[in-house]
Amino acid sequence: MPASSITQLPITKVSKAASTETSDALAIEEPLEIRLEYGPISNRRVQNVSVTMRTPGHDAELALGFLFTEGVIQKKDNVIAVDHYFIACAENKENVIQIALNEATIPNLRNAERNFYTTSSCGVCGKGSINAIRTVSTYNNKQQEDNFINASLLHRLPAILSSHQKIFADTGGLHASALFTANGELLLVREDVGRHNALDKLIGAALNKSWLPLNKTILLLSGRASFELVQKAAMAGITVIAAVGAPSSLAVQLAEEFNITLIGFLRNERFNIYTAAHRILIPDYETTH
Amino acid sequence: MPASSITQLPITKVSKAASTETSDALAIEEPLEIRLEYGPISNRRVQNVSVTMRTPGHDAELALGFLFTEGVIQKKDNVIAVDHYFIACAENKENVIQIALNEATIPNLRNAERNFYTTSSCGVCGKGSINAIRTVSTYNNKQQEDNFINASLLHRLPAILSSHQKIFADTGGLHASALFTANGELLLVREDVGRHNALDKLIGAALNKSWLPLNKTILLLSGRASFELVQKAAMAGITVIAAVGAPSSLAVQLAEEFNITLIGFLRNERFNIYTAAHRILIPDYETTH
Repeated sequence: MPASSITQLPITKVSKAASTETSDALAIEEPLEIRLEYGPISNRRVQNVSVTMRTPGHDAELALGFLFTEGVIQKKDNVIAVDHYFIACAENKENVIQIALNEATIPNLRNAERNFYTTSSCGVCGKGSINAIRTVSTYNNKQQEDNFINASLLHRLPAILSSHQKIFADTGGLHASALFTANGELLLVREDVGRHNALDKLIGAALNKSWLPLNKTILLLSGRASFELVQKAAMAGITVIAAVGAPSSLAVQLAEEFNITLIGFLRNERFNIYTAAHRILIPDYETTH
Repeated sequence: MPASSITQLPITKVSKAASTETSDALAIEEPLEIRLEYGPISNRRVQNVSVTMRTPGHDAELALGFLFTEGVIQKKDNVIAVDHYFIACAENKENVIQIALNEATIPNLRNAERNFYTTSSCGVCGKGSINAIRTVSTYNNKQQEDNFINASLLHRLPAILSSHQKIFADTGGLHASALFTANGELLLVREDVGRHNALDKLIGAALNKSWLPLNKTILLLSGRASFELVQKAAMAGITVIAAVGAPSSLAVQLAEEFNITLIGFLRNERFNIYTAAHRILIPDYETTH
């Protein structure tokens, strides 16, 4: 992880017994503007697609993952160049990333307007949100081979993630997304102050490695599972999501519709299976009803 | 809290010793579209301002708080009506809220484009983000009287919040924002799957009660303190923010610039003071350096 993901600041540490002037490591949060360059060579356009508050590091993966999981681009081959820019300012930080598409690719910019789900004819509701994702998802219904996971393996994943979550260990301030094989081997970890950014970085990295669809892996989320995170996972063809925290109702509905196995509260040697339980291989000890 | 904030779903609960078919309470997450009606009576306009994934309940407060903390409207008196709508769909849920402004109010819709901070001449950087907020904040530099808090009082706040966090107790899935007096009396609690929504609901409720500026209160956040949350607090004139989790670097910078006292890791009878430590009254026991 780049050193610029963390900063040290002076603080006053207070307990019931003492007050101490010391310093503390904080996760850096800075804006990143994602720009898209596209169109015929005779008439290239550059457009601001999003500004996100992120932890610096893996910016190119973040931008690529964002464009992919929001349905703006369909595949890695759409992209011909990734450039960093500095907008002149007092701080002079690397704060703009520009993704150039090949001439043949027309970006679906309606999807990036952060109201993805309102494009459905159904209007604004959970069902409409889910349908809107179905219209842009590439991997839905392509999961012909299945992905079976041993229950005992799942219990071990949070500890593996913790041992690799470097910035969190220092700052306590970051969300993480991790990708494991079905055998529990850690493939990738990405961290960010924003949980959606951590997942976009992870999926962007996997896209760069030509690993998609990720239908033979386990996605581990360090916190809760919201609709937005399940949406992004669905776009990458992920079939098993395990969250350390709670899922929301709409996250469960979306996972159900996309035949994704959604696990929550994976901690303290326990977990809950919310959807598609058939992928989790549970030893044949006494099952209570 | 309305019953519709929670839903029950069948789950498989798995531990190392047993697997049980049971049910689990989940926090509901559903889209809400916020619309604005404005302009002269002869030519009223209705515009979609935002779609947010929220937990149903306190929708009017959420919409009002959002419009205020994003700088779209300046005060409660700008609003003449709040109406709920149902967009026809399979689920038939209450999913649109329309805020009507009086004829004299011109909404600042550039602020609602979720790139608030890019409007600054400085460009995209932390400094620019902070300056952009300064241009729209109503209460900055109006804090003439100060707000002093006893350190011993802060230790008690998380337990008071927990005892009032009804939906979280059932689902483990919600963020909370709570407002306390400087004496530790709980004034308001709001919960949501989105931490920004919980704070918008809280500030919207306070705005309805004509409590702004909230410069004599303590804002308690159940999780981490991001830039966005400190931004919203600054818009409401809040002077003391205490978070159970970690702050980000930019949250600290913004708090510093706005002379807001920012406390993090408020748990287990300890906390860290990141900015404006003068407001926290610490007993004169031995201070180490």
